[in-house]
Amino acid sequence: MTECSIVKVLVGRETWERFISQGLDKVISVYFIASTKVSTIPGISLAGANPELTLYTPALDVEYLTLGVPKSLPVVPTTPDGIPTPALLTKVALELSGVPHLVVDCGSYIDPQIPHVDIPSKVVGGRIDLEDSLTPEVASKLFEGSRTLGKMLGARSSLLVVGESMPGGTTTAMATMEALGYRAVGRVSSASPLNPHDLKRRVFESAVKRVGKRLPLAEALEAVCHFGDPLHISITGFLAGALERDARVLLAGGTQMCAVLALARTLGIRFDGRVAIGTTRWLVEDRSSDLSGLVKDIYPEVPVVYADVDFSSVEHWGLRAYEEGYVKEGVGAGGTLVISALLKDISSRELLKAVQEEYERITSLVGKS
Amino acid sequence: MTECSIVKVLVGRETWERFISQGLDKVISVYFIASTKVSTIPGISLAGANPELTLYTPALDVEYLTLGVPKSLPVVPTTPDGIPTPALLTKVALELSGVPHLVVDCGSYIDPQIPHVDIPSKVVGGRIDLEDSLTPEVASKLFEGSRTLGKMLGARSSLLVVGESMPGGTTTAMATMEALGYRAVGRVSSASPLNPHDLKRRVFESAVKRVGKRLPLAEALEAVCHFGDPLHISITGFLAGALERDARVLLAGGTQMCAVLALARTLGIRFDGRVAIGTTRWLVEDRSSDLSGLVKDIYPEVPVVYADVDFSSVEHWGLRAYEEGYVKEGVGAGGTLVISALLKDISSRELLKAVQEEYERITSLVGKS
Repeated sequence: MTECSIVKVLVGRETWERFISQGLDKVISVYFIASTKVSTIPGISLAGANPELTLYTPALDVEYLTLGVPKSLPVVPTTPDGIPTPALLTKVALELSGVPHLVVDCGSYIDPQIPHVDIPSKVVGGRIDLEDSLTPEVASKLFEGSRTLGKMLGARSSLLVVGESMPGGTTTAMATMEALGYRAVGRVSSASPLNPHDLKRRVFESAVKRVGKRLPLAEALEAVCHFGDPLHISITGFLAGALERDARVLLAGGTQMCAVLALARTLGIRFDGRVAIGTTRWLVEDRSSDLSGLVKDIYPEVPVVYADVDFSSVEHWGLRAYEEGYVKEGVGAGGTLVISALLKDISSRELLKAVQEEYERITSLVGKS
Repeated sequence: MTECSIVKVLVGRETWERFISQGLDKVISVYFIASTKVSTIPGISLAGANPELTLYTPALDVEYLTLGVPKSLPVVPTTPDGIPTPALLTKVALELSGVPHLVVDCGSYIDPQIPHVDIPSKVVGGRIDLEDSLTPEVASKLFEGSRTLGKMLGARSSLLVVGESMPGGTTTAMATMEALGYRAVGRVSSASPLNPHDLKRRVFESAVKRVGKRLPLAEALEAVCHFGDPLHISITGFLAGALERDARVLLAGGTQMCAVLALARTLGIRFDGRVAIGTTRWLVEDRSSDLSGLVKDIYPEVPVVYADVDFSSVEHWGLRAYEEGYVKEGVGAGGTLVISALLKDISSRELLKAVQEEYERITSLVGKS
């Protein structure tokens, strides 16, 4: 089955059908987490109850995803208004489909209190308006370590779903793409319905001024060190390793994953129809960003598919808020839903029921409703 | 296919055929590493060039397995005589079959320089003749952390192959089984053709005297803390978690894995035909140990299968030494070969060729021949 009720193809139907026709027997979902101090710039990220807490969100997301309760702090991550993390959708999808999952830490501010893979030399990314994100040595080690992991987990006919949790990531993704010569200012998404494009642009402009080099840069690692973060170079390395083993990779995310495409293109990594992007309806319908345009500019043969989920009829305001442009995507929610729905033919009704039950469970945990 | 030229069933043919009939599409191999200071007792372990180096063997094994070269030290692990680690066989098997793999550190003396999963609270096991192996708190955390990992990776119809590298492990396995009421002294295997049963027994007797409790103990964790190590309780936790997800588990190892059976039985973990042991011909033909007898005493419905590999005709002395009773098993060699052979119908001739080529490659690396 290449399309079911909640799986829709935005662009690249033919490539997607070939991608999926190689089978869904061997699926593993891998969630990369990292932090960038960019997320602590007030106004840049809603992925945490306040700017400081955005540094804790990645670890809390994967603890909640894995255990059903966060461990490092007693709170499921929310926006400042209390809208829950998209990990809620990822968790429901994994439970409905039984897909196995792993967590990879390439630079989380705190160590997640669950079994996870550490990429050697993992580090929190610097605030790119003020300092470099990474040293060249660390960037290279993150790429190579993640590439090794991609080779360990990749296998012919296997499908690796790769999600991420890194607040501030659309800003560093935007800056990375711009540094590599792709127009990205004003085109990346946000967890807020009021996408702070001006603030993101100012962060990038400060970085450009600080670095003082003529753009575009020719080297992927140089772009990452000056303008990027630990996450996107690690996912690019993982992708490279998995492709070396003839695996397929579904990049489960929104415009952040376009930074991975840009890094991979610059590094000369050939996809040969074995890479796709899976996201949510909220992301592809977002008028404040331009996922399909970015993909078209960077790697036009990459298909984009999405989970066509609609929360407008659900009872709980914290889920209905997704329809108003809050959160939209993250922790691989869209791509995990796509693959889970293809595997188990999950109906929209079944999914909404499970999502609402999970929402009720977590709001009872944290004493909110 | 339930049996091919190099896969043989020692006991439990019917259960094995049901086990395998659930398919081999979703196989992941997972190698647990840990250290116990028992391995530094002179004469107890040949899994390293000298007793101190046995503490480095687990990390070097998985670095070599994953990268083709060890990183923490510039030596592929060998016995004091230079006979290479069984990870050589595991590596060849993974390469021939393309099975994905992961490494889990539940207490290695050094941190392996490859991406790996750390079990929270991992620790080197104490020398049980002199001190407890673990605290109850650590033992419990190792079990629960590994159980979480088993739940993350397990899925209905998936098959998890679980190997190990922990020098000294047959001694702590023996002591654990004895502590739980199973006769194990004189029945565990060794990497040496001259199995040091007396020395192992004396280590156990010192532990019994030190602990001063009447055996058998009723509690699995208590047995592990006084007589065990970090490895076997972690694998037992992983097994428990994987079974909760309806996965199957092939315990890839020799008599050490009987300690896992004993812990699981004591903890009341039900196998329901979803657990088997996979090992090597050298192990099942070893007259100094009694794998099938231990299985029969502890969990008689568990099938035992083995890779029927014969090195007597190979050119290189370091491989022919396996026929004289050196090494025999480890790093999941036997079970990984079994599953790889079933997946790819690997012939004995093809395997021997690949093993000899790999032997030549590593001996050229370390400047030996």
